[in-house]
Amino acid sequence: MSSSDIFIGETIGTAVLILLGGGVCAAVTLKASKARNAGWLAIAFGWGFAVMTAVYISAPLSGAHLNPAVTLALAIKDGGWDNVPIYWGGQMLGALIGATLVWVAYYGQFQAHLTDREIVGGPGAQATSAKAVEAQEKGAGPVLGIFSTGPEVRHVVQNLATEIIGTVVLILAILTQGLNANGDGLGNLGALITAFVVVSIGLSLGGPTGYAINPARDLGPRIVHALLPLPNKGGSDWSYAWIPVVGPLIGGAIAAGIYNVAFA
Amino acid sequence: MSSSDIFIGETIGTAVLILLGGGVCAAVTLKASKARNAGWLAIAFGWGFAVMTAVYISAPLSGAHLNPAVTLALAIKDGGWDNVPIYWGGQMLGALIGATLVWVAYYGQFQAHLTDREIVGGPGAQATSAKAVEAQEKGAGPVLGIFSTGPEVRHVVQNLATEIIGTVVLILAILTQGLNANGDGLGNLGALITAFVVVSIGLSLGGPTGYAINPARDLGPRIVHALLPLPNKGGSDWSYAWIPVVGPLIGGAIAAGIYNVAFA
Amino acid sequence: MSSSDIFIGETIGTAVLILLGGGVCAAVTLKASKARNAGWLAIAFGWGFAVMTAVYISAPLSGAHLNPAVTLALAIKDGGWDNVPIYWGGQMLGALIGATLVWVAYYGQFQAHLTDREIVGGPGAQATSAKAVEAQEKGAGPVLGIFSTGPEVRHVVQNLATEIIGTVVLILAILTQGLNANGDGLGNLGALITAFVVVSIGLSLGGPTGYAINPARDLGPRIVHALLPLPNKGGSDWSYAWIPVVGPLIGGAIAAGIYNVAFA
Amino acid sequence: MSSSDIFIGETIGTAVLILLGGGVCAAVTLKASKARNAGWLAIAFGWGFAVMTAVYISAPLSGAHLNPAVTLALAIKDGGWDNVPIYWGGQMLGALIGATLVWVAYYGQFQAHLTDREIVGGPGAQATSAKAVEAQEKGAGPVLGIFSTGPEVRHVVQNLATEIIGTVVLILAILTQGLNANGDGLGNLGALITAFVVVSIGLSLGGPTGYAINPARDLGPRIVHALLPLPNKGGSDWSYAWIPVVGPLIGGAIAAGIYNVAFA
Repeated sequence: MSSSDIFIGETIGTAVLILLGGGVCAAVTLKASKARNAGWLAIAFGWGFAVMTAVYISAPLSGAHLNPAVTLALAIKDGGWDNVPIYWGGQMLGALIGATLVWVAYYGQFQAHLTDREIVGGPGAQATSAKAVEAQEKGAGPVLGIFSTGPEVRHVVQNLATEIIGTVVLILAILTQGLNANGDGLGNLGALITAFVVVSIGLSLGGPTGYAINPARDLGPRIVHALLPLPNKGGSDWSYAWIPVVGPLIGGAIAAGIYNVAFA
Repeated sequence: MSSSDIFIGETIGTAVLILLGGGVCAAVTLKASKARNAGWLAIAFGWGFAVMTAVYISAPLSGAHLNPAVTLALAIKDGGWDNVPIYWGGQMLGALIGATLVWVAYYGQFQAHLTDREIVGGPGAQATSAKAVEAQEKGAGPVLGIFSTGPEVRHVVQNLATEIIGTVVLILAILTQGLNANGDGLGNLGALITAFVVVSIGLSLGGPTGYAINPARDLGPRIVHALLPLPNKGGSDWSYAWIPVVGPLIGGAIAAGIYNVAFA
Repeated sequence: MSSSDIFIGETIGTAVLILLGGGVCAAVTLKASKARNAGWLAIAFGWGFAVMTAVYISAPLSGAHLNPAVTLALAIKDGGWDNVPIYWGGQMLGALIGATLVWVAYYGQFQAHLTDREIVGGPGAQATSAKAVEAQEKGAGPVLGIFSTGPEVRHVVQNLATEIIGTVVLILAILTQGLNANGDGLGNLGALITAFVVVSIGLSLGGPTGYAINPARDLGPRIVHALLPLPNKGGSDWSYAWIPVVGPLIGGAIAAGIYNVAFA
Repeated sequence: MSSSDIFIGETIGTAVLILLGGGVCAAVTLKASKARNAGWLAIAFGWGFAVMTAVYISAPLSGAHLNPAVTLALAIKDGGWDNVPIYWGGQMLGALIGATLVWVAYYGQFQAHLTDREIVGGPGAQATSAKAVEAQEKGAGPVLGIFSTGPEVRHVVQNLATEIIGTVVLILAILTQGLNANGDGLGNLGALITAFVVVSIGLSLGGPTGYAINPARDLGPRIVHALLPLPNKGGSDWSYAWIPVVGPLIGGAIAAGIYNVAFA
């Protein structure tokens, strides 16, 4: 794989991942969305199939890491570090693009949700400040959760541990795929299995922190949240931002270590 | 594939697609349906498995496009336009048949929903006009959503953008299937993966407009809605009808362009 | 396949099918069940995976028809009628066994549901007649729906049409499996695809009649319902019983006809 | 496979199984979990994908039994008993580790649930006894269900029968996998099919007892529940503990017997 294929593949793939992953959060959260309140199962399947779709699209170009922690783990496992910055760069750019596309696709829903009124006049129709404040009081809440993760109970050690544990499961499942079916790997089925592993992590380990398990998935959209001209959007919670970056990277390193010791 | 096989395959396949896809909307919407209020996850899986079933049935005859935007994208990618009218014709005919079969399968439910009373006497028992108006006031609503899509927030630019984005994801995932598994394609798994891509688009991008992402899926049933003798059925919203036709076609063309530039 | 393998395979497979299919209906319906009110999506996936499990278990012995309408359709398609009675016999016996096992597995739940009190003393503790009547009045309803299907709107033509349409989709999807993947069939994936087709039919066409789409699935458990010593069980609705037998058989014949004309 | 590979594989695999399986129970049950009240379908898919993930990770090392009843059934089927203690030992150790990891990942949620207050000060902040009692009265309930199974209706014969029936279905489906696809087995697809069989058993047979169908899955976490320093955790219900151990072992033996008589 050439450097440009890697960069383009990771950019397209991570953009699709965040578009679909952020999209399901928008769909379930925002006012005037047909999928509003569809529940946690929708979130978990939505993110799982987002991974599947993104992997099948980008695998021919870049091998579909789509996650800096996966890139780190593969570098540790295989000992090749040259392409790591290209992967990470593409992943971050893709995450920025994907989160922006969520905003485009749900433009009217964001406006309705954040200003508590129907949009009929198009993008030009902004809420007056007084109206927006009133809407805020009526319960039109912040939308950071559509972009980035956050903890239900703010507890640094636990939050970090939960992200590490989730990422170890994810990446151990990815690394061992090549050993299945008598060492021939999972073939066509690989990305589908990874999708269901992600559904599993969402259902089982997503409760405390919202399962970032991917630094680009969390940091990229958080930057977009900070930059977008959304009315009443609330803060971007930068004090928490390091945990879904550092936790998954530690988890990836631990998974690679377990693989090298027990499976290699 | 002969022209008649293509036409018959697309007709049967799209009929099954719309029967099952429209069916899940009827099941979740109508009074006196066991699946009433089953929720958005049921809609998303219902449409996804509708695609899967229709593809496996029609693939041996026509290759299972079942969507004018897919046919357009493949024509752009491969440069062959001769069969496009045959595909589009079969798709539209199939959509008309499928939407009509939804009405047959849910006949009593449509009657109960639109007239707010139990049907016990069979098809002959029509609501009197006064009773129907009264039912309308009690909340027995219009049923266009069982046939065609519509926006939650009416905003031409956003609605078109959402349909374009959803279709790009769908068709990019279809076009890249042949590049997976080291270029041998996804084999038997292809239609199942496409089904889950459709579930993903439904969960993640369906909130604003109901994800037509297929001109035949929207236009065919809208025509059937306009023609069927349903009491109190409400309007067919023809002013919106061009968006789920034009949006997906633009999306298909963009996806083919991305494919030709980045993947070919 | 020998006659005894066919009979044993169909008996075991249909018993598993009805145990798991009836089981999910019991799980969602009965008092004192952890899955109570899990909803229509649980019903649809429950029946789909019931089919999958039963097919993989019985396929090595009998080819896993598990449905008289499938046996009929294959006989029409292939022109071989000798084993039809053996298949049908095994399917009916299996359905009787499976429905009885549902009652065993949910014994305490049936008692609690039908008598509106906790069972602590074991099978000997029957409700007094007065208590049972009181329970009935409190809403502990009949349980026929755990065994057999029934229409929401009683309309012979529609009910029959809905069962025919659902069965045509099911059996057309089964018959065309062998034509996929360039005529090599779906291989290992076949039963999984069939499972998702059944989920699809449940979500999309199950609303009006509860989708029997299989004469043995409906008639066998109805007989068991009539025979079991359940308190306050209500009637077995024999006036409807012919529809989920005749409808699927007609559907199977139509699907075989479509296959022979359009696909063979 | 060497003894150490078997032991390590079963330990890692069962730890992942119980982490993800117990995790989904924690996610759905505990206060301050994003997935709270996600419902029975989430439980069923959560456990199914937990099995899938654990099997793909551990299969290269140990063949992924992850269940003493599976080990027993394979020993009966194949007549090889030498490795049984190694499998059982790894499974129990893994279950202890997995249940402990659930507690780590959901630490703050356990504290919030059991003491009815937000944790902000970290692990040192314990509830005073008075506050805890008050919380208990407010409905912060016991958490044994996150660790081990329990019956809705306490009835020894039924509870045992339900566990036996569920395990027979599970293990018969596993044993017959090798006979599918004309005797070549299910290949890569095996663990995915097993996952859906587990979803099926959860949906269809989980209502009465919570479907242990695996002695290690129930006994290991019950020991961890007894040992963990959880406030107000309630009892570990040791009087029931033998049923989810003995029932699945009987079920495994019966399934192996059916296999040897009807399928071998």
